[in-house]
Amino acid sequence: MQITLIGTGNLGTNLYEALRRAGHDVAQLPGRSFATSDVKGELVIIAVKDDALPDVANRLKDCDMLVVHTAGSIPMEVIPCRRRGVFYPMQTFSKNQLVDFTNIPLFLETEQAGDIKVLESLASTLSHNIYHLDGEGRRRLHLAAVFVCNFANHCYALGAEVLKEINIPFDVMLPLIDETASKVHNLSPREAQTGPAVRMDRNVISRQEAMLDGRTKDIYHLMSESIHDLKI
Amino acid sequence: MQITLIGTGNLGTNLYEALRRAGHDVAQLPGRSFATSDVKGELVIIAVKDDALPDVANRLKDCDMLVVHTAGSIPMEVIPCRRRGVFYPMQTFSKNQLVDFTNIPLFLETEQAGDIKVLESLASTLSHNIYHLDGEGRRRLHLAAVFVCNFANHCYALGAEVLKEINIPFDVMLPLIDETASKVHNLSPREAQTGPAVRMDRNVISRQEAMLDGRTKDIYHLMSESIHDLKI
Repeated sequence: MQITLIGTGNLGTNLYEALRRAGHDVAQLPGRSFATSDVKGELVIIAVKDDALPDVANRLKDCDMLVVHTAGSIPMEVIPCRRRGVFYPMQTFSKNQLVDFTNIPLFLETEQAGDIKVLESLASTLSHNIYHLDGEGRRRLHLAAVFVCNFANHCYALGAEVLKEINIPFDVMLPLIDETASKVHNLSPREAQTGPAVRMDRNVISRQEAMLDGRTKDIYHLMSESIHDLKI
Repeated sequence: MQITLIGTGNLGTNLYEALRRAGHDVAQLPGRSFATSDVKGELVIIAVKDDALPDVANRLKDCDMLVVHTAGSIPMEVIPCRRRGVFYPMQTFSKNQLVDFTNIPLFLETEQAGDIKVLESLASTLSHNIYHLDGEGRRRLHLAAVFVCNFANHCYALGAEVLKEINIPFDVMLPLIDETASKVHNLSPREAQTGPAVRMDRNVISRQEAMLDGRTKDIYHLMSESIHDLKI
C-alpha cells in the first residue's frame, strides 16, 4: 500500500520501520513542517503527539484519501475529512527500542463502512491482533493502558529511587519485574497479588510507609488501601 | 544438605520444590502445628507469613543448628538462636505457579561469620544471583520490591477494572505489559516512560481523571504528578 506517515517521534519511528518491513511504500513526513503537496497515496497516517494532532489534521482538510490518526484518547472527529478513521496500536513506543508489531493489538475505526476494509487489510500485514473499537471504547481502553503501562513503569521508577539509597543496581529487580508480568498470563492480577498490602500486614505496611515521605508516601498509602479493597 | 523447611504457603511450596530439585534432603513442616522434635538437619528455614514468624522462631529457641527466616522486612534478631540468619529470595511466589529459582536474587545474612558459608553453599545450588545484605538494607530492598511487584501488579488490576466496563478481555493488555517489563532491561524506568503524564498532556489527563472516581481517581492524580516530577 502507498502510505504517507506524518510524524517522526516514538510511534512514527516504530511504525515507519514496521510498515517498511511489511513491504509498504511509505513516505514519512515531519509533523511540524510537512508540505501538503507531499501527502500522497491511498492512506495518510498521522502519528504525532496528541496536542499537535488538531493542527496537523486541519492541514489535511482537503485530502480525499483516507486519513487516520493513531491516538488512544482522541475521537476520530478531530480529522475534518469525509474519509477518516483511527488506527490505534496499543503499545509503549520508544525511538531507541524498536518493537515487533506481530502481537500488538491494533484497534480500528472508520467513518465510512467501506474504509474499514482498507485499515483491516493494512493491519493484517502488521499484526494478528485486530479489533474494531469506537471512540468511547478506545478512550477507556487507553485509560486501562495508562494504568498497566505508564503507572506500572512508574512503580518501577519509584522502586529504583528506593534502591539508589542502598546502592543496589536496578538490574537486581528484573527477575521480579519479569515474573510479575509473566504471572498475569495465567492468573488474573487480583489472583496474582502478593505482599504486605494484600495480607494487610499492618506492621510491615506502617514500617514501609515510615521510610517514605511526600507524594511517594501518599502513593504507598493509597495503593496499599486500594490493593486491600480489590482483594479476592 | 539436610534441611527442615517450616511453612507450606506460597514461598514454602515453591522453596520445597526448588530445594528437592537441587538434590537436598528436605523435610517440610506446617508452620502452625509442627513438633519441635521433627526439626532436624543442618539448617532450618522458616518460610511463614511475617506475622506468624515471631511465634515460630520462639518455638525454635533451643535449636543448635543454623535457623534462618525468609522475610524481606523482618530483622534477623527475631530468631532467638545463637546461630541465626536470613535467606531472602526476592520474588513473587504463588502456590499455583512454581518459579525457576535460577535467576532469583538471594539475599543472605548471618549472625556468625562462619555460617554465611553454609547459606552461600545452599544458595549456589539454587541461583547464580547471590548477595550479602544486612537487615537495614534488606528492609529498603523489600520496599523497592513492593513498588516494582505488588504496586505494578495493582496497576494491572486497576487497568483490568477499567476494561471490564467495555467488555474487552484482559489478555489484550499482555503485549503492552510484557513490553513495559522488557523495556527496563535496556532503559532506566525514567527513560522508558511514555504516555500523557510524562508529556504533561493536560487535556488527556483531565479527561482520563474524569472517567474515574474515589480512590482510583486519587491514585491516577498522584501517579500522574509523580511521573512528571521524575521526568528526565
